[in-house]
Amino acid sequence: MTNLTLTNVRPMGAAATNLHIADGRFADAAPEGAEVIDCGGRILIPGLIEAHTHLDKSLLGLPWYRNEVGPRLIDKIDNERAVKVSLGLDPRVQSERQAIQSVAFGTTHIRSHVDVDTHHGLAGVEGVMATREKLAGIVDIEIVAFPQSGMITRPGTVELMDEALSMGVEVVGGLDPCGIDRDPRAHLDAIFALADKHGKPIDIHLHERDALGWLSMEEILVRTRAHGMQGQVTVSHAFCLGAADRAAVAALQDQLAEARIHIVTTAPSATTVPAVKELRALGILTGSGSDGIRDTWGPYGNGDMLERAMFIGLRNNLRRDDEVELALDICTHGGAAVMGIDSYGLTPGCAADAVLVEGETVAEAVALRAPRKLVLKGGRVTARDGACVLDAP
Amino acid sequence: MTNLTLTNVRPMGAAATNLHIADGRFADAAPEGAEVIDCGGRILIPGLIEAHTHLDKSLLGLPWYRNEVGPRLIDKIDNERAVKVSLGLDPRVQSERQAIQSVAFGTTHIRSHVDVDTHHGLAGVEGVMATREKLAGIVDIEIVAFPQSGMITRPGTVELMDEALSMGVEVVGGLDPCGIDRDPRAHLDAIFALADKHGKPIDIHLHERDALGWLSMEEILVRTRAHGMQGQVTVSHAFCLGAADRAAVAALQDQLAEARIHIVTTAPSATTVPAVKELRALGILTGSGSDGIRDTWGPYGNGDMLERAMFIGLRNNLRRDDEVELALDICTHGGAAVMGIDSYGLTPGCAADAVLVEGETVAEAVALRAPRKLVLKGGRVTARDGACVLDAP
Repeated sequence: MTNLTLTNVRPMGAAATNLHIADGRFADAAPEGAEVIDCGGRILIPGLIEAHTHLDKSLLGLPWYRNEVGPRLIDKIDNERAVKVSLGLDPRVQSERQAIQSVAFGTTHIRSHVDVDTHHGLAGVEGVMATREKLAGIVDIEIVAFPQSGMITRPGTVELMDEALSMGVEVVGGLDPCGIDRDPRAHLDAIFALADKHGKPIDIHLHERDALGWLSMEEILVRTRAHGMQGQVTVSHAFCLGAADRAAVAALQDQLAEARIHIVTTAPSATTVPAVKELRALGILTGSGSDGIRDTWGPYGNGDMLERAMFIGLRNNLRRDDEVELALDICTHGGAAVMGIDSYGLTPGCAADAVLVEGETVAEAVALRAPRKLVLKGGRVTARDGACVLDAP
Repeated sequence: MTNLTLTNVRPMGAAATNLHIADGRFADAAPEGAEVIDCGGRILIPGLIEAHTHLDKSLLGLPWYRNEVGPRLIDKIDNERAVKVSLGLDPRVQSERQAIQSVAFGTTHIRSHVDVDTHHGLAGVEGVMATREKLAGIVDIEIVAFPQSGMITRPGTVELMDEALSMGVEVVGGLDPCGIDRDPRAHLDAIFALADKHGKPIDIHLHERDALGWLSMEEILVRTRAHGMQGQVTVSHAFCLGAADRAAVAALQDQLAEARIHIVTTAPSATTVPAVKELRALGILTGSGSDGIRDTWGPYGNGDMLERAMFIGLRNNLRRDDEVELALDICTHGGAAVMGIDSYGLTPGCAADAVLVEGETVAEAVALRAPRKLVLKGGRVTARDGACVLDAP
């Protein structure tokens, strides 16, 4: 069913019209005999882009995990490595559970950071790869090899990352070069070398605040230029861009724009965050993601990227309709641009990846986190009325 | 139906038991012939407390309002006064719509600030009073006379507040003594004089940041002591308690604790906010509320105080189960204490105001914002499966 005509549909809240899908792509006309779906005047938005999550370690579907973890980042990292063993967490099953829930909420593309460490090796990568294969045609999953437990401090991790990239992982990950590895030079040299060797882009977690984060950012900038990787490096979280010293941040942001570094924000409300309107004004590609969903780090999150747009709006004080539309754009076109997804959108020629939502306007759909009536992936119906066509394991 | 036995119910997530309700109150045993409700092992929490909202001016049920308002506080205030006229907003209808939605989410008590100004007079108060009467037995509504447009800058407002209090409004409101009226002395003297005259408590909006807010706080403290109003003054929002200078904030918080001033936070994510764990550690009564719901200030909000507990958790970085339980406690016992609600809770003798929610644990119910199966007010079923027993107008 990849030939469709959607009738009485409102693309991005515009006036009702008909849209055609031929061979899984939006088209000027549908082939004869295309199936017709009456959209009842609902709004069509492009498929939601989950540009930062951790499919391998959600606890979805398991009995409640009572969180009694300490307050430091390293407490959470050490606890997680242990709990994976004590709970017998299966990355294949968990990633499938989370991905199916995301599809039900309208997600068509996921970038997942997947733990690579000397304790669990490549089990996470193998599990998410199996899910990726199983869900082909339902949701696209891109994998980042993510050294969650540190890389330089845990010898053998770089070799595992190298192996993961040889296996088909698409992106080189990294994590707090100063805060975790306490060696920005060695950490960043290692990940840029991996990127060089495999010809793959980089997406690095950067939780470091204020001046510590700026140092890491500057070192990332130096290497991005030296390796000619402009447009191929993403910094996730980037809390240091929310620092109070806006003059210092502005100087840094100008350099990020010039080096075409992308930013992915999860818009957490308890810390400083990049100001998305500033990033967009500078032309810095900006996406968003759910981060961890119901895991050992915390109980929150559900994979709903329409709700994430609301969080972006709340966190950035976006109240006007045009501002709320910007928040959604970060969760659609912004994330797609960061991930380099081709032919994305609702215009003829684009892949028919789209979500039908309730609401009078796009802003209302975001504010209500409106029910998803239908989700399409390449013109195929992947979810109806909030339920994925596949059952979770 | 105020004599009930709830079977297979888990109070606050504890082991399943039976709870009895006699004449609308929890009791050690139910009278013979009491109706039996099988709770299916779900969790029972006390009725949710909406301790800060604006019932009179929600736009719920109206066509979408396209927000193009300017960025300053005064832009929003001036715009709102005008839009009330252009939309013909009826405070009676709007307050009923919002209150019924709140009941569906499990709210049993609402404190609503209601605009009093020289343009619209007491129309808001009269409208919410009519709703309060209509919804008696479904939800308790307490009204704060709120000088949203300023008091000293708009002569005649104090007299209207005085009239509102004579009509039966329970609480004296106030707003940014420096930021809006630009005259902290005159503003605070006026509201404390009204409180004296009518023998009623105070709940003042304080958006002022940093040192400006500290000044207003100090002036509130001076008058609280001078008027012997310890335990009868609430400061809503109190963004200045989230300021970066924690030593200055700590000194102020010690005084707030000593004067028994209460804090109500809406846990917005775009500004500094009071640190709820610090407040609780000091014994400062702390409640929460939704603030405005889908109004001319912004499109967000739905009146769900279980979701508000999640926002408190996200904003205050509450991840451990005991911390998430604290967030819910602010939306239940905390708000009830701020509002001075007697006989609140799930123990024998307490009014049978309670909500039955899905979830394995209380923390899960908060994280999921779990569906509400049943809402009781004085033992009467006021909502089932997410729908109030009354239809909204």
